Amino acid sequence: MKKRYETVVVGGGIIGASIAYHLAKAGIKTAVFESGEIGQKATRAAAGMLGAHAECDKPGTFFEFARASQKAYQRLEAELKQISGIDIRRRDGGILKLAFSESDRERLMQMAVLDSAEWLTPGEVYEKEPYAAKGILGANFIQDDVHVEPVSVCMAFAKGAKLSGADIFEYTPVTSIETGPGAVTVKTASGEAEAEHAVIASGVWSGVFFKQLGLNKRFYPVKGECLSVWNEGIPLNRTLYHDHCYIVPRHSGKLVVGATMKPGDWNEQPELGGIEAVIKKAKTMLPEIEKMKIDKCWAGLRPETEDGNPYIGRHPENGRILFAAGHFRNGILLAPATGAMITDMILGRPVKKTWEEAFQAERKEAVNR
Amino acid sequence: MKKRYETVVVGGGIIGASIAYHLAKAGIKTAVFESGEIGQKATRAAAGMLGAHAECDKPGTFFEFARASQKAYQRLEAELKQISGIDIRRRDGGILKLAFSESDRERLMQMAVLDSAEWLTPGEVYEKEPYAAKGILGANFIQDDVHVEPVSVCMAFAKGAKLSGADIFEYTPVTSIETGPGAVTVKTASGEAEAEHAVIASGVWSGVFFKQLGLNKRFYPVKGECLSVWNEGIPLNRTLYHDHCYIVPRHSGKLVVGATMKPGDWNEQPELGGIEAVIKKAKTMLPEIEKMKIDKCWAGLRPETEDGNPYIGRHPENGRILFAAGHFRNGILLAPATGAMITDMILGRPVKKTWEEAFQAERKEAVNR
Amino acid sequence: MKKRYETVVVGGGIIGASIAYHLAKAGIKTAVFESGEIGQKATRAAAGMLGAHAECDKPGTFFEFARASQKAYQRLEAELKQISGIDIRRRDGGILKLAFSESDRERLMQMAVLDSAEWLTPGEVYEKEPYAAKGILGANFIQDDVHVEPVSVCMAFAKGAKLSGADIFEYTPVTSIETGPGAVTVKTASGEAEAEHAVIASGVWSGVFFKQLGLNKRFYPVKGECLSVWNEGIPLNRTLYHDHCYIVPRHSGKLVVGATMKPGDWNEQPELGGIEAVIKKAKTMLPEIEKMKIDKCWAGLRPETEDGNPYIGRHPENGRILFAAGHFRNGILLAPATGAMITDMILGRPVKKTWEEAFQAERKEAVNR
Amino acid sequence: MKKRYETVVVGGGIIGASIAYHLAKAGIKTAVFESGEIGQKATRAAAGMLGAHAECDKPGTFFEFARASQKAYQRLEAELKQISGIDIRRRDGGILKLAFSESDRERLMQMAVLDSAEWLTPGEVYEKEPYAAKGILGANFIQDDVHVEPVSVCMAFAKGAKLSGADIFEYTPVTSIETGPGAVTVKTASGEAEAEHAVIASGVWSGVFFKQLGLNKRFYPVKGECLSVWNEGIPLNRTLYHDHCYIVPRHSGKLVVGATMKPGDWNEQPELGGIEAVIKKAKTMLPEIEKMKIDKCWAGLRPETEDGNPYIGRHPENGRILFAAGHFRNGILLAPATGAMITDMILGRPVKKTWEEAFQAERKEAVNR
Repeated sequence: MKKRYETVVVGGGIIGASIAYHLAKAGIKTAVFESGEIGQKATRAAAGMLGAHAECDKPGTFFEFARASQKAYQRLEAELKQISGIDIRRRDGGILKLAFSESDRERLMQMAVLDSAEWLTPGEVYEKEPYAAKGILGANFIQDDVHVEPVSVCMAFAKGAKLSGADIFEYTPVTSIETGPGAVTVKTASGEAEAEHAVIASGVWSGVFFKQLGLNKRFYPVKGECLSVWNEGIPLNRTLYHDHCYIVPRHSGKLVVGATMKPGDWNEQPELGGIEAVIKKAKTMLPEIEKMKIDKCWAGLRPETEDGNPYIGRHPENGRILFAAGHFRNGILLAPATGAMITDMILGRPVKKTWEEAFQAERKEAVNR
Repeated sequence: MKKRYETVVVGGGIIGASIAYHLAKAGIKTAVFESGEIGQKATRAAAGMLGAHAECDKPGTFFEFARASQKAYQRLEAELKQISGIDIRRRDGGILKLAFSESDRERLMQMAVLDSAEWLTPGEVYEKEPYAAKGILGANFIQDDVHVEPVSVCMAFAKGAKLSGADIFEYTPVTSIETGPGAVTVKTASGEAEAEHAVIASGVWSGVFFKQLGLNKRFYPVKGECLSVWNEGIPLNRTLYHDHCYIVPRHSGKLVVGATMKPGDWNEQPELGGIEAVIKKAKTMLPEIEKMKIDKCWAGLRPETEDGNPYIGRHPENGRILFAAGHFRNGILLAPATGAMITDMILGRPVKKTWEEAFQAERKEAVNR
Repeated sequence: MKKRYETVVVGGGIIGASIAYHLAKAGIKTAVFESGEIGQKATRAAAGMLGAHAECDKPGTFFEFARASQKAYQRLEAELKQISGIDIRRRDGGILKLAFSESDRERLMQMAVLDSAEWLTPGEVYEKEPYAAKGILGANFIQDDVHVEPVSVCMAFAKGAKLSGADIFEYTPVTSIETGPGAVTVKTASGEAEAEHAVIASGVWSGVFFKQLGLNKRFYPVKGECLSVWNEGIPLNRTLYHDHCYIVPRHSGKLVVGATMKPGDWNEQPELGGIEAVIKKAKTMLPEIEKMKIDKCWAGLRPETEDGNPYIGRHPENGRILFAAGHFRNGILLAPATGAMITDMILGRPVKKTWEEAFQAERKEAVNR
Repeated sequence: MKKRYETVVVGGGIIGASIAYHLAKAGIKTAVFESGEIGQKATRAAAGMLGAHAECDKPGTFFEFARASQKAYQRLEAELKQISGIDIRRRDGGILKLAFSESDRERLMQMAVLDSAEWLTPGEVYEKEPYAAKGILGANFIQDDVHVEPVSVCMAFAKGAKLSGADIFEYTPVTSIETGPGAVTVKTASGEAEAEHAVIASGVWSGVFFKQLGLNKRFYPVKGECLSVWNEGIPLNRTLYHDHCYIVPRHSGKLVVGATMKPGDWNEQPELGGIEAVIKKAKTMLPEIEKMKIDKCWAGLRPETEDGNPYIGRHPENGRILFAAGHFRNGILLAPATGAMITDMILGRPVKKTWEEAFQAERKEAVNR
């Protein structure tokens, strides 16, 4: 079987699923090749914070791109529910970036200048979240940094793409991507597919394809270990955040807590020591969490790049190849904007110059974050 | 420790949790005693259809009560999310009661006279749900028979009650309820509680307390076996229903399918033969389901009474004792109205005469369904 | 349905199942009434150490009873496999009771006088278990303190009983035990059973029946939280033990680690703080465990009595009633001897005087442990 | 990091793990590269029958190889327990190949001539297994066709290899195997390894490497769906087998039931229709199974080759490359003999000529089965 598509997407995580969704809706005949199941790797492991502010220490191009993506979720919530029947469980409430020290406070103040951020005194914090740990020096409150359920978003994108005509091939690892004059060929154990364009969206596993295609960029895993508990007794309406750790109150009644940062570890299972570290950290933000029932433990690999920013763009020497990978801690947040940007590129629509430059493979320097 | 409450509720399923929620919100000092965990018995097993029409063959008192409860969910959805942070995942779309035979059609027509029901020709059915099985003779479409996630509702009620001051005791089976002149005493392995009123809301396990208190009414289990699958590929927006079986499209992307009817079976585990029967039945309504990935299998006990209707009311000879049990297939649907009705009785507010008569223990005849 | 048996056993944990097994094998028509599923409460939570020495600080009656039970497992392993087809996964290797301090050493030395125990120097310990934590002062090595899989033992007892003619009623909580001149009657929601004898074997939940029957003894839960990890890389052949915590190497390749001690907590779910404590403790005995993959977390209730010893015997004023409950940390270890002793009592066979006195309800003082 | 080994094994299923175990024990510095976790693909899905006779209709080379492997398990059981601490749960009892029709009977009679097989009349069958379905015409009883727990075997091999000095890399998919004059290089996302020899042991996913290395042989998946139930009540000591389906009584008290045959399906998840088929089939062999509690459902991919036999041998033109893949339904059975044979080849020890010819890539015709 040699199948023919306009675009093939390599990777069925939230980035690949978003790209397929945007392409299929635009009428492009699309296929997704996923080695396992849709959304079951880094996507599943994510907490789902749309932390445009949470992940940035100051404004800039990255922040602007993140904000655009964050806003797209407002529209997508209803759209995906209508098309796919799946609710992505977007929950507002926002995030409290807690300051436990003077240096925390100074750093957080840099973002507090934005209209979308608000500096709260300790008293104001405890009024909003009376169970936050004692002793904080204030918090940056960002109403817009809401959260979603990553697997639901990914499944909604994939099903939406399918119902618009895309093919989704699960359990179909791509073994090579080859380009010729007339088409790009994607090879798998169960057959090949040809297409006008191929998009590499394989998270931290994208490096192999980059190398095959002469893109000299590397990806590094940063493993994160997480857990969830049942919050049956206390009010908690906002995500608590400190030092890259978070406690996210889900609409299901669970709190999702994460995450460790283990660079270079490719193993996707949570280790006992990592879980201990997460518990310890969670208690510093929310002491009551110690009494809650444990639900699950898990881990996932954040795809890190050399400068910390994703590669989103087109192969400099081969117009058939595009890429969208390396979103590090921000895959869920950036999925809508990434899907839209890749679709615009394939369709020849205009793309914002600053974004194109910031995320191209051959960029000179790191984007300001 | 002898604790003192205004009301104690015996049973932490959706009925008990709803009662506690309504009481606590009204300022009544309430405690719930649950033998295991909140909502983990019959509540967990339910599909969550708010099938006011689905469960009735003709209008009458029961239908009227069911409709009131169904409507209450509209308000509760936002209220519970706001108070407890938990989303009950109410999903509209309605239900299609399919007719596969002439006798199906005739029976379904009895309800189609209602404003809230609409008779659809086969062509109209397939336009709405193109994957419904071939060969149907039409369907009764009820827009208002939506569904919710039962465990989420129950946890939201319980947490809402708690945040309004109620105590929830999990893993605390009540071993006896004793009434004296000044109070009713509820005994457990870990201590006793006294209260002005006790409400028996223990589902099919209520019979023991009824007997202890001189109420000569029995409860019978009707076991139901269910399963869920992942619907990744086809549109299905409405519940399909035939012959007490259903396929419910959840907002998570799963389809919930059930259920067998096994009277007299107290075992809460699904048997292989029951699961086979559910699969077979599901295929008659939705042939494509055969290709879907299986997610889970489970079972639960519907609490059946002598005449098929719940007992909701006050002990005829002992004003301290109330009961709300025996909701059979309709526990999720009737939980809001039941909670409100019991609360009204305890507070001495007026209760609709027809409802009181229909659900009292000493009723003469079965309510017309 | 009123059923008639020679003996009814109230409780289907490992104690009740052992009693039923021994009775049924002796030709006694027996029934077990279990509120949930066989072996799914305290039995499931146990690590399965047969720690006759581990649990005793000095020789005495308790130790002697424990040793008899421990030895019975040798025979039962083959017998249960033959009768029920279930392998109880008895694993030898023994236990190392580690001394981390001088006071540890002194206490452990008291047991080292026994022939079955052997004092090891640090060098000898590391030769046996090179991954044991640095800095220990020696260990008491007890070859005979092996372990089994508790749920497998319990299921094997229950199935063995069934295949010898016993009836096992799951999901059948007993609500009262009543004695009359001709029989004892056991009542449940689904009917009653009459018998010559009833045996209370309901673990920490036995208190209710004791009270009903005029036995003025109480039971207290001591909750224990546990976890398991996959040991894929290091040799560990012996249980490590210190300060009531243990790391048990199972034949499945998992290590079972436990347990916290939370007196008075009836909730059977593990809390986050408890799991953190278990991890911390495990690292003090086996630092490498920090790198292992977490498998599961769980909790269970040890049934504690006033003096720490189980009640095994006959009601002083009512010959029809027997009891076997309150085994605290030693339910798995003592199940065979308890089952045999109760069976001997019911059959009128001689029972060791010291054991009878040590475990009777009306004993004067605590058994020496 | 460029690592250097004597042999690298590509694939950490039971075949790769057995090879690594045999090599490491022989003192060869070995590494295993596994894309996910050890033994979690086809190995996990297998029932674990050592069906040397079950899988053959007549004697021949394949049968002889299978018998040798089956016998090796007797020794391995104790050896692996001793070295790795893991019990592979080998269970004897044998298999009953049931005849439901005259043609069944004739076919089965072909094997009954062997000393290791015994033809039983219906009466003899029911004496051994009274719950076997009524109406059978006899059965071929093979005492030696015992079974093991596949994941335990695989983990024991892997841990045994590790404790003998091998490195096991989980979550490390090999992306290419390249051969040069001095070494073979195995590339992965996390780095490269060089070795004297590489062994391809990637089951149905081996085709990609075969192609890369100029071996023109293909692999096809034949998906099998399975389930397990708890047998709490009836005696069943022998595997029941008919028409490539089986009911295997495990030492845990579960029955494992399988499996469907779906050629060409690469998806590793069980579908609802497949599970229905398995239930239906199981009932024809053991009607009582319908009342048993369902435990789990799963699926796996059998690696099928063009002629149905595995490729075990050396690349005809490249002495550094060996392969051991395509074991179809017989991976568990053949793992020991395969591991030993590959090790012999690498060490230059003599290998049985008939086996070498039967399993080499360039064989002329199918092995007689």
